[in-house]
Amino acid sequence: MIKAAIAGATGYTAGELIRILLNHPMVEIESVLSTTSVGQKVCDVHRDLIGETDLVFTDKPTDPDVVFLCLGHGLSREFLDTTSLPDKCKIVDLGNDFRLDPDYNGKHFVYGLTDTFKEEILQADYIANPGCFATAIQTAIVPLASAGILNDEVHVTAITGSTGAGKKPGETTHFSYRDNNLSIYKLFTHQHLGEIKRTLTRLQGKEAPQVNFVPLRGDFPRGIFASVYTKWDGYKSADGTVKSSLEDAVELYSQYYKDSPFVFVSEKGISLKEVVNTNKILLHIELHNGYIHISSIIDNLVKGASGQAVENMNMIFGLDRTMGLKLKPSAF
Amino acid sequence: MIKAAIAGATGYTAGELIRILLNHPMVEIESVLSTTSVGQKVCDVHRDLIGETDLVFTDKPTDPDVVFLCLGHGLSREFLDTTSLPDKCKIVDLGNDFRLDPDYNGKHFVYGLTDTFKEEILQADYIANPGCFATAIQTAIVPLASAGILNDEVHVTAITGSTGAGKKPGETTHFSYRDNNLSIYKLFTHQHLGEIKRTLTRLQGKEAPQVNFVPLRGDFPRGIFASVYTKWDGYKSADGTVKSSLEDAVELYSQYYKDSPFVFVSEKGISLKEVVNTNKILLHIELHNGYIHISSIIDNLVKGASGQAVENMNMIFGLDRTMGLKLKPSAF
Amino acid sequence: MIKAAIAGATGYTAGELIRILLNHPMVEIESVLSTTSVGQKVCDVHRDLIGETDLVFTDKPTDPDVVFLCLGHGLSREFLDTTSLPDKCKIVDLGNDFRLDPDYNGKHFVYGLTDTFKEEILQADYIANPGCFATAIQTAIVPLASAGILNDEVHVTAITGSTGAGKKPGETTHFSYRDNNLSIYKLFTHQHLGEIKRTLTRLQGKEAPQVNFVPLRGDFPRGIFASVYTKWDGYKSADGTVKSSLEDAVELYSQYYKDSPFVFVSEKGISLKEVVNTNKILLHIELHNGYIHISSIIDNLVKGASGQAVENMNMIFGLDRTMGLKLKPSAF
Amino acid sequence: MIKAAIAGATGYTAGELIRILLNHPMVEIESVLSTTSVGQKVCDVHRDLIGETDLVFTDKPTDPDVVFLCLGHGLSREFLDTTSLPDKCKIVDLGNDFRLDPDYNGKHFVYGLTDTFKEEILQADYIANPGCFATAIQTAIVPLASAGILNDEVHVTAITGSTGAGKKPGETTHFSYRDNNLSIYKLFTHQHLGEIKRTLTRLQGKEAPQVNFVPLRGDFPRGIFASVYTKWDGYKSADGTVKSSLEDAVELYSQYYKDSPFVFVSEKGISLKEVVNTNKILLHIELHNGYIHISSIIDNLVKGASGQAVENMNMIFGLDRTMGLKLKPSAF
Repeated sequence: MIKAAIAGATGYTAGELIRILLNHPMVEIESVLSTTSVGQKVCDVHRDLIGETDLVFTDKPTDPDVVFLCLGHGLSREFLDTTSLPDKCKIVDLGNDFRLDPDYNGKHFVYGLTDTFKEEILQADYIANPGCFATAIQTAIVPLASAGILNDEVHVTAITGSTGAGKKPGETTHFSYRDNNLSIYKLFTHQHLGEIKRTLTRLQGKEAPQVNFVPLRGDFPRGIFASVYTKWDGYKSADGTVKSSLEDAVELYSQYYKDSPFVFVSEKGISLKEVVNTNKILLHIELHNGYIHISSIIDNLVKGASGQAVENMNMIFGLDRTMGLKLKPSAF
Repeated sequence: MIKAAIAGATGYTAGELIRILLNHPMVEIESVLSTTSVGQKVCDVHRDLIGETDLVFTDKPTDPDVVFLCLGHGLSREFLDTTSLPDKCKIVDLGNDFRLDPDYNGKHFVYGLTDTFKEEILQADYIANPGCFATAIQTAIVPLASAGILNDEVHVTAITGSTGAGKKPGETTHFSYRDNNLSIYKLFTHQHLGEIKRTLTRLQGKEAPQVNFVPLRGDFPRGIFASVYTKWDGYKSADGTVKSSLEDAVELYSQYYKDSPFVFVSEKGISLKEVVNTNKILLHIELHNGYIHISSIIDNLVKGASGQAVENMNMIFGLDRTMGLKLKPSAF
Repeated sequence: MIKAAIAGATGYTAGELIRILLNHPMVEIESVLSTTSVGQKVCDVHRDLIGETDLVFTDKPTDPDVVFLCLGHGLSREFLDTTSLPDKCKIVDLGNDFRLDPDYNGKHFVYGLTDTFKEEILQADYIANPGCFATAIQTAIVPLASAGILNDEVHVTAITGSTGAGKKPGETTHFSYRDNNLSIYKLFTHQHLGEIKRTLTRLQGKEAPQVNFVPLRGDFPRGIFASVYTKWDGYKSADGTVKSSLEDAVELYSQYYKDSPFVFVSEKGISLKEVVNTNKILLHIELHNGYIHISSIIDNLVKGASGQAVENMNMIFGLDRTMGLKLKPSAF
Repeated sequence: MIKAAIAGATGYTAGELIRILLNHPMVEIESVLSTTSVGQKVCDVHRDLIGETDLVFTDKPTDPDVVFLCLGHGLSREFLDTTSLPDKCKIVDLGNDFRLDPDYNGKHFVYGLTDTFKEEILQADYIANPGCFATAIQTAIVPLASAGILNDEVHVTAITGSTGAGKKPGETTHFSYRDNNLSIYKLFTHQHLGEIKRTLTRLQGKEAPQVNFVPLRGDFPRGIFASVYTKWDGYKSADGTVKSSLEDAVELYSQYYKDSPFVFVSEKGISLKEVVNTNKILLHIELHNGYIHISSIIDNLVKGASGQAVENMNMIFGLDRTMGLKLKPSAF
């Protein structure tokens, strides 16, 4: 059994991680760490876990094989500086400390976008788990970048659930405000643009095109719906002919994701709840006005955070990528 | 024009009061008072008021004809102790300071349940505006108490919108928690039971029967749905015959509320949104198992707070009760 | 008093029209027409109207001064062909029959985008009321077109409430499906593009630029949130200097809408519920990446349908545009 | 592997059953039956199942070990009359055909309330799966009935999610109606009262007390929150002393459910989402006014339908009751 420690364990992503790991056949949670709740029962904080675990929050790990960092953005470095971990201990960081800046104290954090960087991940010990918006958006465009045909501006509007804003209550997560409401924030400046552009640059070997990103706060707790479009001229096939029909586009994506157990290209239009409570990404493609439009949907807490973190863990420990991640969709 | 001051003006009930008074043909808001937001524009706090008012928060009233107190429960006395008001100034207190304890410093606060105590209200200068749950529940049972036939326990379950919990964000008003959720609080001990029992005792001239009250937090911002039932043996008509059919029950209620411009007995079953954003109360009556069951619905911010407060103001100034209160329902 | 008839009166927009007109000081509803509900009480269909009206559905108007057509798209011509109306009778069509094709049987229908075509509207007898998406989107871009500086593609994503889909229940309006869900429909092909392009062409005197429009079904009943952006190089002022700062942009919009009683440019970011249940449009402007981005929000049933219809009626009858339209926001 | 057939497979409960069974380690779904969708892919109807199954709807089972009947109420008998099933085939009926009337054509259907009738279920071949409300309510009161101390009226208010009303769209499941709304239906007459009273009568050996049941339509898709109270005088312990404290009440319930893997008595107040997407039942107990009040929450589609159906299947096939039912809670 893999012994796992979870730091920052009172937050939403940690709660989701515990939910997933409790049913993972090869993992035993050895410690759930918190600076504020030491001694409290985990199920008194994550109330849905009543009857599922007797774990209690502690302040340091014992002898973990892997530690998941669910700390506030910027706090992972501090944790590593002040916490003694065994040499063998692998790390999955769910924060943004190592996504753009992967080397720290002799450790190299591989960017854990599982469907794009799988070869590197399989060799890694340390993972920088991607951001939620970044996962939904990159999954929609890396097949184009990988084919070298993402040369024009990308237009993205993505709407996120409230759990993306964390557990601390505030004005824009107040139910009286948020219910039946929508609002834009961080227009064209969201911090996930950094990791998106870094990936595009790496895949194409040149500066990434501009990504115009309109993020919205949605009135639902879970999920991200990303609408993404960019110019489409098709691609050159092996025999030199240009492939530019809808079927060609679908083929490009299907080929790119053919070994990805959680990514599916849907022929029909998609709706957000089809992926909620699962580790899946659904894509749907249409061509209009000279553009290719991709709808991309994920559960921000699962594929956008803790699910992909477990998928990364499975990969760095040589397990089946899907282990513990065949989750029943909630559907409604 | 009646010059109105509003104290505690950054909260939800004050916001609703401003919304209503801005369109009231006989009222001019002279001051919106706040201890925390002096100098700020009202429409920067109550954002939906953009374009409707240039009012700015101040720290004291000028020369109001009426002051509405929208302070935290318990703070109205403090406000009156520390604020200089002209002698002529009438007061409508939306808190609970004077509902059970109506006399303070020579002022007598009449309990402002408009459809039950209208004669007293018409003579009053000072009003203790009823609580939201108390309004929905009392409206369902005072016709029985008034007829002297409310002798058995009353069973009440009532579900409230999140605005009832106020503006300050917290765990149970966090969108991620509250959305699609339900929970009980203050089971059988809610503070509104005090004013309900006081009314029943006054109307029947004897101790009120036990009221078993299950309050629930609902996953909607506005409204209260109260389900109320008690034993039903009918009533004696003028000629001594017992009236106990459904028609008789409906007749009893219709007679009781025949002069009430906002209370209606619906023949058909009712749903909460039929009253949202209005000052109306809808009642629906059924008889089963020896019980009379009354569904009673209100908008907690309007009839349950600021709408009834304006109705009381209309009454104490001798205006038409409905003035400024013919609000378009939102319906959806 | 203006005597109004409403055709197609069992639907959502007709219900909203009745709600507004019941409180309009200069209108008397003389007939509510339906082919399916003749003889039924209006408040038995529009249940929130209990206590507010005794109107009954009939099958033909008596002697109306104005008729509002709330029929299914395509059915307005049929109604006019088969219904005898007095010569004096003015018409406001809420369907799409005359938006692109304004002349019918000697009647000329003026496109009723109140803030752009007010001079024409003031002279009109017949109005083609704009579509809901079309209202939100056009309001965001006509100041640019009017200044002759809308020359590049426009990128629009707009999310609509469920009432936009009408009253007939179906798969995508089923609560179990729609709650906490999002989906795209009519991608880049929505029918409102026609009226948007027609307006742009008229204002600029040349072919309109391409409008890329992603419409989404939102999980709320009322409102449209439109996110709109296009290239921004500023504009030439009277003295020939180029004005391209954010302040210049805000000034351009503020000037354009300076006489519009319901359109406001907000300095702060906006959220959908700030306009719900009102006839207002709020705009918020930012500049990024060489683009001007405009957020535009309306209530689809009010400014997007019945509110603007009443505003048009006010204008063609020479009344104050805001009469009957100072609606209390629901805010929550 | 157990080969399972599912009849009525396009509906909500069948969809949920498929979601659960696809991950069940001992079950293979051999046929999903439908009269209307033969030849269609299952994931084209239950859209969240894309990527999880290639199953196609058929019109008859092949050689099932068990058949689940998810037909409309009243249609199970007709199915059995017209469908040839192998002799070995066990049956779990999710409809109400055999709950009150357990014998049909030589088959005896045991009432599958898993935590109360486990001994009978373990011996059974045919199961009448309980109703959703009936599961939530009975779980709250059978410990009292089993102890012979349920002698007074029971007061129940329970609020259900929209999936309880099935897939067919209608007026009360329209999103525009249901969102942020509440309404009562089948007041004091809900059909689940029959199975509740039958259980109480069986457990106490005398006529059941009156159960006053107020069912409400809630504005959420999944879950039932039941509020239940009845007179409480405590119980006699083995040594003859009366046990009537809150601790005694909790002890009574904890003992009754000590072997139930999915039922938990929570010391703290509970909220509906703590059980959504799980097979759990949470109970919370308080004593007030001479009453014992029990809050009882379930997911109507899981413990209230398909989850309990699988639990029953596990039991009649001698498997671990929890197999395939350790579902990740959605929590939000």
